[in-house]
Amino acid sequence: MFVKEKLSNWLLQEQENAVFFLQKTVQEASTTENEAGVQKLIASKLEEIGLEVDMWYPDGEELAAHPYFCAGRTDFSKSPNVVGIWRGTGNGKSLVLNGHIDVVPEGDLKQWDDHPFSGKVIDGKLYGRGSTDMKGGNLALLLAIQALKESGTKLKGDLYFHSVIEEESGGAGTLAAVLRGYKADAAIIPEPTNMKIFPSQQGSMWFRLTVKGKAAHGGTRYEGVSAIEKAAVVLAAVKKLEEIRNQRITDPLYKNIPIPVPINIGKISGGNWPSSVPDTVLLEGRIGVAPHETLEQVKKELEEHLAAIGDSWIKDHPVIIEWFGAQWLPGSIDTSHPLMKNLVHNYEQVLGEKPMIEASPWGTDGGLLTQAGNTPSIVFGPGVTAVAHYPNEYIEIHKIIEAAEIIALTIYDWCGGYSE
Amino acid sequence: MFVKEKLSNWLLQEQENAVFFLQKTVQEASTTENEAGVQKLIASKLEEIGLEVDMWYPDGEELAAHPYFCAGRTDFSKSPNVVGIWRGTGNGKSLVLNGHIDVVPEGDLKQWDDHPFSGKVIDGKLYGRGSTDMKGGNLALLLAIQALKESGTKLKGDLYFHSVIEEESGGAGTLAAVLRGYKADAAIIPEPTNMKIFPSQQGSMWFRLTVKGKAAHGGTRYEGVSAIEKAAVVLAAVKKLEEIRNQRITDPLYKNIPIPVPINIGKISGGNWPSSVPDTVLLEGRIGVAPHETLEQVKKELEEHLAAIGDSWIKDHPVIIEWFGAQWLPGSIDTSHPLMKNLVHNYEQVLGEKPMIEASPWGTDGGLLTQAGNTPSIVFGPGVTAVAHYPNEYIEIHKIIEAAEIIALTIYDWCGGYSE
Repeated sequence: MFVKEKLSNWLLQEQENAVFFLQKTVQEASTTENEAGVQKLIASKLEEIGLEVDMWYPDGEELAAHPYFCAGRTDFSKSPNVVGIWRGTGNGKSLVLNGHIDVVPEGDLKQWDDHPFSGKVIDGKLYGRGSTDMKGGNLALLLAIQALKESGTKLKGDLYFHSVIEEESGGAGTLAAVLRGYKADAAIIPEPTNMKIFPSQQGSMWFRLTVKGKAAHGGTRYEGVSAIEKAAVVLAAVKKLEEIRNQRITDPLYKNIPIPVPINIGKISGGNWPSSVPDTVLLEGRIGVAPHETLEQVKKELEEHLAAIGDSWIKDHPVIIEWFGAQWLPGSIDTSHPLMKNLVHNYEQVLGEKPMIEASPWGTDGGLLTQAGNTPSIVFGPGVTAVAHYPNEYIEIHKIIEAAEIIALTIYDWCGGYSE
Repeated sequence: MFVKEKLSNWLLQEQENAVFFLQKTVQEASTTENEAGVQKLIASKLEEIGLEVDMWYPDGEELAAHPYFCAGRTDFSKSPNVVGIWRGTGNGKSLVLNGHIDVVPEGDLKQWDDHPFSGKVIDGKLYGRGSTDMKGGNLALLLAIQALKESGTKLKGDLYFHSVIEEESGGAGTLAAVLRGYKADAAIIPEPTNMKIFPSQQGSMWFRLTVKGKAAHGGTRYEGVSAIEKAAVVLAAVKKLEEIRNQRITDPLYKNIPIPVPINIGKISGGNWPSSVPDTVLLEGRIGVAPHETLEQVKKELEEHLAAIGDSWIKDHPVIIEWFGAQWLPGSIDTSHPLMKNLVHNYEQVLGEKPMIEASPWGTDGGLLTQAGNTPSIVFGPGVTAVAHYPNEYIEIHKIIEAAEIIALTIYDWCGGYSE
């Protein structure tokens, strides 16, 4: 029997167990500091499959010294990382399979039709926070590995399965795995892409702008300077910069994306009394970082652009820029990279059609793997992009099985699979 | 001895007692619900001077039924109004002297150099919240009345001294005085005008605008509609309306005022996450009302102007307008009104120069006196406009005495003063 058939048959008969395992992992509400339960499930599963398991609690102080560290905490004493290791027999290319097990909070309970961590299956969809982002993707990885093991496959190259914390908060889990040595020649990350293949991922940073005015009574508002009016000038300048930055992007991966690297102003607040001229406005936003940009380049560009605003008041009262909160590094792998070729080929083999290849509009841990771990990464997974972080999050079960088969074949090809 | 000399001499010798009385009234921190202490002082003073005194607690429910009622409460059981009555001997014109005794809160204590209700005198200035706005003005009224009484003057017309609550919150105190019958042929209100004479006062109203957008992830912001961007469109429309409204104003009283009736946006807030497209922005502002406009006309004009914004998204998601919080009616007296002539004449007599005659950039209880009480009002007082509502509020004592003399002579002329 050919490998493909063996894998396909095994996955088909395993589907029921797989759904049950996914329910268990979704029911573990692995928000920040609550990751230990699901990590223990994953570690047991990896042992059952036959991998070496390394479970450890990242050292926050050590991580904090790294230039790419970004997190809201340095205490990870309740939040273990797990890596499963399948040692190759030698002379093969190594691969990282990376998935995060942290989930964002469930949000407003009233917007959920059921318990947010129910794991309930309705019409082939499994519901719950984390189902699509990205425990379903992680399951696809585990199934791919297990299918290969069950079919008696051996690999020449090493395989590392990362089950990491903190992706939703800046990537400290993947950074910890990389610093512990779990790097490879390339990586696959099954974030929810709707089965699209993303060789490039947009990075992003958050910023806060403080725009100053001069207070006065509203009845004599001409004696003051409205920070709201000046904020409108700043908003126009930000929009102009977005235009300039996006005109530079010619990569065909972005051809269907109206604004490849948007600058979003997400929050505004200013003034405190209807009849006073407001003297301060705060703007908070997110700037997209193109695959080949560094965070420093982008910071400098925004800073210089705002410093050049042609408004005499703003010249005398410059906009204050703070870089705060989360940041995600961009990532990119060449579309002609051999792992891309393997993945695309196997996608076509399994699904009988060409995959959609695009650039992702958001960051993943692929940026850190590439830039901190020298491990170029492809993002490809079964989850539904639109429901990630939303109420009634779900994943389609048959897509997990399809992704598992595609990834298993890709591992086989990339790591030099063989049967004795 | 001429009346002017008598009044002038008496005021000079009374100055020390007057300062002591002002200290006592400033030290009564008469913020909302704490007006009773100072009102009792005023009532005693009026009795001492020899006026009839009417002190009563306004009936909130009765007031609330009036179309011009505007207040944050309907319970005035701790907040008495006081009116002092000097009955005329007949066949004279009547006059209201109106001053509010409520004060705005002291605000941030750290910004005060001394206790905010100290009443301390330094270099001829008396400090404290309420000194300029407007207990110093009220003192000028009391001194004017007392000076006339002490000089043996009789009046043909009736004189009503209003010591009212709630001016800072919409004028319920003056409305209560008017509804109790204390109206007259005209009125003087010694709000802090820096000794300028304001025959016209700008009214104002507060409004809240809700601007809608459509949420999306910041990385795909083109899938949403930014309520911040749409708010910028609304802000531009508001500015255009301000232009249109002010082009209509040709009254020479406004010739030195860059924007006679401004529209001020004092507060903005919207969005709650840097990397989400904001779906709602709230704007709060104050619209100035010209002396001859009704509040209803102005409301309608803003509503129609915003409904006509030429933006297809806003057409489908109209701006929601709420009229909330405080409102002040505009007021106006003809510059050729006989009381204006009396006041201007006496100003010139006492100070030896022409007064500045302008339109006020803010509302006073003069709007209510005019529109609810059919009592046209002039605003003229000794306080310093710039420090009203601010830390380290003060009033110059010699200006109180000057204003008292000018007002005493004006009462004499207007109400038909004579000595037996």
